[in-house]
Amino acid sequence: MSAFTILEEYRSKYESLVNWFMYSELAVGAPEDLYRAAFHLIKAGGKRFRPMIVLSTARMLGGEQAETRALPLASAVEILHNFTLIHDDIMDNDDFRRGVPTTHKIWGVSFAILAGDLDYALAYKSLLMSKKYGLQQERILRAVEILTEATIKVSQGQAYDMRFEKEQSVDYNDYLEMIYLKTGALIEASAKLGAVAAVDEPSLIEKLGNYGKFVGIAFQIRDDILGIYGDPSKTGKPVYSDLKRSKKTLLLLYAYQHADGRDKEILEKILNRQRLGEEEYGEAADIIKRTGAYEYAQSLANKLAENAVRILNDITAVDEKAKEALRELAEFSVKREK
Amino acid sequence: MSAFTILEEYRSKYESLVNWFMYSELAVGAPEDLYRAAFHLIKAGGKRFRPMIVLSTARMLGGEQAETRALPLASAVEILHNFTLIHDDIMDNDDFRRGVPTTHKIWGVSFAILAGDLDYALAYKSLLMSKKYGLQQERILRAVEILTEATIKVSQGQAYDMRFEKEQSVDYNDYLEMIYLKTGALIEASAKLGAVAAVDEPSLIEKLGNYGKFVGIAFQIRDDILGIYGDPSKTGKPVYSDLKRSKKTLLLLYAYQHADGRDKEILEKILNRQRLGEEEYGEAADIIKRTGAYEYAQSLANKLAENAVRILNDITAVDEKAKEALRELAEFSVKREK
Repeated sequence: MSAFTILEEYRSKYESLVNWFMYSELAVGAPEDLYRAAFHLIKAGGKRFRPMIVLSTARMLGGEQAETRALPLASAVEILHNFTLIHDDIMDNDDFRRGVPTTHKIWGVSFAILAGDLDYALAYKSLLMSKKYGLQQERILRAVEILTEATIKVSQGQAYDMRFEKEQSVDYNDYLEMIYLKTGALIEASAKLGAVAAVDEPSLIEKLGNYGKFVGIAFQIRDDILGIYGDPSKTGKPVYSDLKRSKKTLLLLYAYQHADGRDKEILEKILNRQRLGEEEYGEAADIIKRTGAYEYAQSLANKLAENAVRILNDITAVDEKAKEALRELAEFSVKREK
Repeated sequence: MSAFTILEEYRSKYESLVNWFMYSELAVGAPEDLYRAAFHLIKAGGKRFRPMIVLSTARMLGGEQAETRALPLASAVEILHNFTLIHDDIMDNDDFRRGVPTTHKIWGVSFAILAGDLDYALAYKSLLMSKKYGLQQERILRAVEILTEATIKVSQGQAYDMRFEKEQSVDYNDYLEMIYLKTGALIEASAKLGAVAAVDEPSLIEKLGNYGKFVGIAFQIRDDILGIYGDPSKTGKPVYSDLKRSKKTLLLLYAYQHADGRDKEILEKILNRQRLGEEEYGEAADIIKRTGAYEYAQSLANKLAENAVRILNDITAVDEKAKEALRELAEFSVKREK
């Protein structure tokens, strides 16, 4: 992370701030075990990527005061993200995340559904607390609109993701639309929320939204790369995890279209959800790389990140260092190893 | 229902209004099957009890204009209620509701979780649409606060309900607190939301909230009575359904405390989640009645409904007929057969 010094400085500062806010203002309630389940994954770790975007955007456009007003919004996005993780883990039947058993593995499916539901409500509660932090009513309402719109999109994206699992072939554009909805929309919302804490101009808020949208899609494409080629000791995920789950990522879709003969047959087995031997997954990973899928995906992610940076460059910042943090974050999202 | 003529007139009018709003403004989206799942139970029926409270309260305090402004709030509460039903049915592993298979029985658990999540987001979207219906920003924000607070309580109540299932004995007060959280809080919120569409005075909004709270708890106690003694052809639930599910209702708790000898043993079997023969459930229902549990529960419900009516009587209404509808509704909630 040495190339991302400002990003790391901000991330670490914001992590402390957001954790303090979430743990003192929202993580305590009755019954205790429900709140423990609701904050289990949040406390297990995570990059706090979304709060980082909320707070840096607020600071970039409105300095320290806007940053302060944005804190409950940053917390809201992180809690909302966590709600989607809890429910996604149930739907995907995943056992581990962030190095710990998933919520439903510890508390059972029913209680985990409920813990996710509570998080959802607490995300709104967090947003509403921005009143105490000096955010004007009109802006709070705008924030509620942004969070609501994003959450609808996240549900839609998850539904498409589940549908794609059952389909033999998926169009690239449909795939990109799906990851925009499932992952990009909440990152887009994060940047918008930060902007809302600082400014009123809808066009400026939209611009930041586009920055977040590009970063979000790029982030997810990099995630797909790491899902096949990532180092398990860094990602915390099993080796070849996306292949083993037959995830129709951009890489697999591209590779299947560009492979032939025996190569295509092996990829077809994965697409058809057949269980393969461990070394066959390694072979499949090699095949995918040979088709140029890795380069294709990475260069698409890079282009999106560049677009995001171009948007930033066009915007006048109150705080240049925060702008630099967001520039680094766009780069980080496509270079990260975890 | 002949004793509730105004109530039925209003209910029927509001049902059409709220259905029109929900189906035209919120029930359409992509992917289509997700939206179909999200509105499956709503379209299957339901009393529209909560929208009825929202709209009657608004009309009582602010006349026709407030009623119009309250429509998106009424829709929000109904959709939120439906979200809790979808998730509750998964948690309780229920196969039927409103005469149709539950959402997860048709679409599977994963998709049903997601459909519930979408409903949750759409409830907020519905609230926010009140802007188009002329509700002032400050009041919309107050509505968001009310809905959020209620949703947190509903999650808490469901958690207590699940915990009580595992406990041998449950204190009456704990039980009443649980049904307040699980059922009463959203009905309380319904009355508050209606009030918010009409007036600004916090104390008046609180008073209506208390009306809703009393009605909500009374409604649930009557539900517990119907869960044992209800006519399956009216309630749509299997005969002795709450006994078969070993639900620790107020009636069972009271009866267990007041029974002895063989009677107590039979009730103990139910509390211990043992499966009984069909005629033993009938016997248990008789035992419970013999202890006076039915009268105890019904008279508590009646008292709560009377309290609710007393609160109404103290409030000056703009529309007396709407007030009468709410009076009838309080009575209906403890006399209903379904």
